Amino acid sequence: MTAYQTLESKFKRLAGIDGALSVLHWDSATMMPDGGAETRAEQLATLAAIRHECLVDPSIPELAAKAVDEVDIADHWRRANVREMLRQWRHANAVPPELVERRSRANSACEMAWRSARSRSDFAAVAPLLTDVVAVAIDVAAIKAQALGCTPYDALLDSYDPDLRSAEVDRIFADLASFLPGFLDRVLAKQGREPAGVLPPGPFPVEAQRALADRLIDALGFDRRHGRLDSSHHPFTGGVPADVRITTRYDVANFIRSLMAVIHETGHALYEMGLPVAWRDQPAGGSRGMTLHESQSLLMEMHACRSSEFLGYLAPQACAVFGGKGPTWEPTNLRRVYLKVERGLIRVDADEVTYPLHVILRYDLERALLDGSLKVVDLPGAWREGMKRLVGIAPPDDKDGCMQDIHWYGGDFGYFPTYTLGALAAAQLFAAAKEADPTIPSAIGRGDFAPLVSWLRANVHGVASRLSTQEILVAATKEPIGTEAFKRHITARYLDG
Amino acid sequence: MTAYQTLESKFKRLAGIDGALSVLHWDSATMMPDGGAETRAEQLATLAAIRHECLVDPSIPELAAKAVDEVDIADHWRRANVREMLRQWRHANAVPPELVERRSRANSACEMAWRSARSRSDFAAVAPLLTDVVAVAIDVAAIKAQALGCTPYDALLDSYDPDLRSAEVDRIFADLASFLPGFLDRVLAKQGREPAGVLPPGPFPVEAQRALADRLIDALGFDRRHGRLDSSHHPFTGGVPADVRITTRYDVANFIRSLMAVIHETGHALYEMGLPVAWRDQPAGGSRGMTLHESQSLLMEMHACRSSEFLGYLAPQACAVFGGKGPTWEPTNLRRVYLKVERGLIRVDADEVTYPLHVILRYDLERALLDGSLKVVDLPGAWREGMKRLVGIAPPDDKDGCMQDIHWYGGDFGYFPTYTLGALAAAQLFAAAKEADPTIPSAIGRGDFAPLVSWLRANVHGVASRLSTQEILVAATKEPIGTEAFKRHITARYLDG
Repeated sequence: MTAYQTLESKFKRLAGIDGALSVLHWDSATMMPDGGAETRAEQLATLAAIRHECLVDPSIPELAAKAVDEVDIADHWRRANVREMLRQWRHANAVPPELVERRSRANSACEMAWRSARSRSDFAAVAPLLTDVVAVAIDVAAIKAQALGCTPYDALLDSYDPDLRSAEVDRIFADLASFLPGFLDRVLAKQGREPAGVLPPGPFPVEAQRALADRLIDALGFDRRHGRLDSSHHPFTGGVPADVRITTRYDVANFIRSLMAVIHETGHALYEMGLPVAWRDQPAGGSRGMTLHESQSLLMEMHACRSSEFLGYLAPQACAVFGGKGPTWEPTNLRRVYLKVERGLIRVDADEVTYPLHVILRYDLERALLDGSLKVVDLPGAWREGMKRLVGIAPPDDKDGCMQDIHWYGGDFGYFPTYTLGALAAAQLFAAAKEADPTIPSAIGRGDFAPLVSWLRANVHGVASRLSTQEILVAATKEPIGTEAFKRHITARYLDG
Repeated sequence: MTAYQTLESKFKRLAGIDGALSVLHWDSATMMPDGGAETRAEQLATLAAIRHECLVDPSIPELAAKAVDEVDIADHWRRANVREMLRQWRHANAVPPELVERRSRANSACEMAWRSARSRSDFAAVAPLLTDVVAVAIDVAAIKAQALGCTPYDALLDSYDPDLRSAEVDRIFADLASFLPGFLDRVLAKQGREPAGVLPPGPFPVEAQRALADRLIDALGFDRRHGRLDSSHHPFTGGVPADVRITTRYDVANFIRSLMAVIHETGHALYEMGLPVAWRDQPAGGSRGMTLHESQSLLMEMHACRSSEFLGYLAPQACAVFGGKGPTWEPTNLRRVYLKVERGLIRVDADEVTYPLHVILRYDLERALLDGSLKVVDLPGAWREGMKRLVGIAPPDDKDGCMQDIHWYGGDFGYFPTYTLGALAAAQLFAAAKEADPTIPSAIGRGDFAPLVSWLRANVHGVASRLSTQEILVAATKEPIGTEAFKRHITARYLDG
């Protein structure tokens, strides 16, 4: 075996373990009875430990050095594969076992405490544990920064979105923070002058919602031979590219929320399903990072499936499946419901205009927590101040304030920015897709997503991790990630539309 | 860490991998879309290889020798644990990696070919592959025999049922083979003089069958906080003791078959659920072997739930759930349907009187295949001859003859005898349980299985692998495994009843 082949076999084993972990996580959230949780945690911890042991294999860097010499300079896939192997090795190897263990313990303890403290809005109960989590994250960031040759915060960003750096995030978020508040005022003023959208009256039986969801995921191109749709407490996409598991949650009072979750997760699923089959068990064949992944879900949810064309296709089907009648079922009204903008407290309920402001707040605060300029005890106050300044309202309590998201309490710092970068990339990609194939909107109006998905396959999904996020965006949209397409999109939809 | 503690931590890791494998197998049979099969096979192969590497750890025998000195002589659980660790190590370590690989390849190829050849009744298509499978099994048996110090066939038996030896099986099967054919004639003559049972007319909607199944597994004591019931092509019990996954298959024309499968699998599940919690992740805490496992399913299916008492409890409930009316729903008729005996071709459809004859045939033939006295090409003829001699009828084709069971085609030799040994153990255990607690039958008549399950917990489930199968039976029933209780049971039920 050549060095390259040896590496491939090592990473094929990792892919087997990763796939098993992914199915076990899916099962935990969808199928597992409560009493199985403790044993499942042991299974997951066992596989995660084995995975880590395989990944920190000390022979990998030397094999990679040899493999680079073996592989033809024009063999872009194999070269990218070695690069991604080394990236994974560096991230795993940077953190010594004691720190991995310390992080795992701190994050689990804090996340568990958060689950019960959140509903009581009891920040004081969780603050000491969050302080530990932040302290560990600072240590991890510092040690990874050394290994990767970047700043500590960038080392965290890099683990969610390879090569993403905060200098770029700063520039983009500064632009949005100066543009959005004024824009928001104008949108709210305009929507205030128009009739409010009225949610069609329910109830919407789960069976009927499920039937509509099935029809839509088929239309979007979700391949049921390679995936399934179930329900879980929080919608997510799991499984492996050959067997993608998406979930939603049904609310009998509001079919739109569940439907949009299905469409969002289908966007993620189509990315996974479209990854190149020949590279499925290798690092180069994986999805590129959280920014591009979120761009694929938001492109479907916010662009393709809130368009007038799509509503024209959806409305009669929803009407039929729920036996809906009357003016609330008109596409014009549904569009108003869909595109309602408001100053809200909760990120996951936010519309696409205010969403980036929620993210910018979190980005600013997590950077301050990690550079030590913000203490955990001061987080609730800083949150309220930031919400007031950016979104224009402040939460009455911490439950709907700094305790609303699981991320920090589970140790995830550097993740939040990718939501908004994903929204920007989605706007760029959808605009480029329509420019390349002007039939896309009218096809969507007939429930035919094939032209859109085919463009995404060629320009995003099929590239996998052969190129960087920026290279993929430049090749597909002719520019690096930026705010222009997003601003044009929300201006057209919320002011000119 | 002491040597004993080191061993415990090694086997805890194995338990984590085993649990993951079990959930992945369950998912393959119940949830996985077809297109996920290839990737799933890779995941399973990866975990199986990692499992094997962990188990053949060369430090285990020396650690075990030290551990035996460390552990108190009266500490029966820990001593049993070391014994079972060594047993697992010996089985795994006996077979060199090349042979493991050869076996895996031969078995997979043959099983796959069997799946398509069976429906065409095309034995010729699968014979060369089965010849390979037998050749590999002979090699494995020989090499294991050396390691375990027993005969080759006994080495195979031992992997399904620790300490079981063919000398004992020979004795028991000779007894049954001489008793059953004459007994069968008498039962058929008696049933011929009585009115035939008539299956209540369907259809039986799946939803209603599912509702009845849910009610019954609750009555039997299946703990839903630690398990779930789904459907699959073949009923099975999977998962782990903290999260037991049972399945059934629904036939809208016949609710009894599905119901009996549910009860059978619940018997298996109760065994798993009743294993001692403190020993769940250690070899001593596992179920004892296939004989005792099958005894638990058959005790529920054949003894507890074909009793007159149970039918008195079941009939009105089944009536209500299916809206059944008329004489076919009377317990007397249902009992005749339940207890119908006939000379059939198919093992899995056989009643409890003829079932052992099907097993004896397979036992004789697999021993002959493995000692070389029967060639694979001569199997179909030997099968027809054996069926004629033992059961009294011969199959018109190989589909319903020597191709009906997956076992040999997947490389399982030494498994079949445990079905009938399980039936014998079930008869002994149920008789002993009723003797110890005479309220058991009347409680079952009220749908109260607690007295029965409580006796099984104390005498079988809770013992796990601390004792051998024979020790467990002697302690619980005052005698080693034998045919007397079974003969008494079928005589009382089919001739005197």
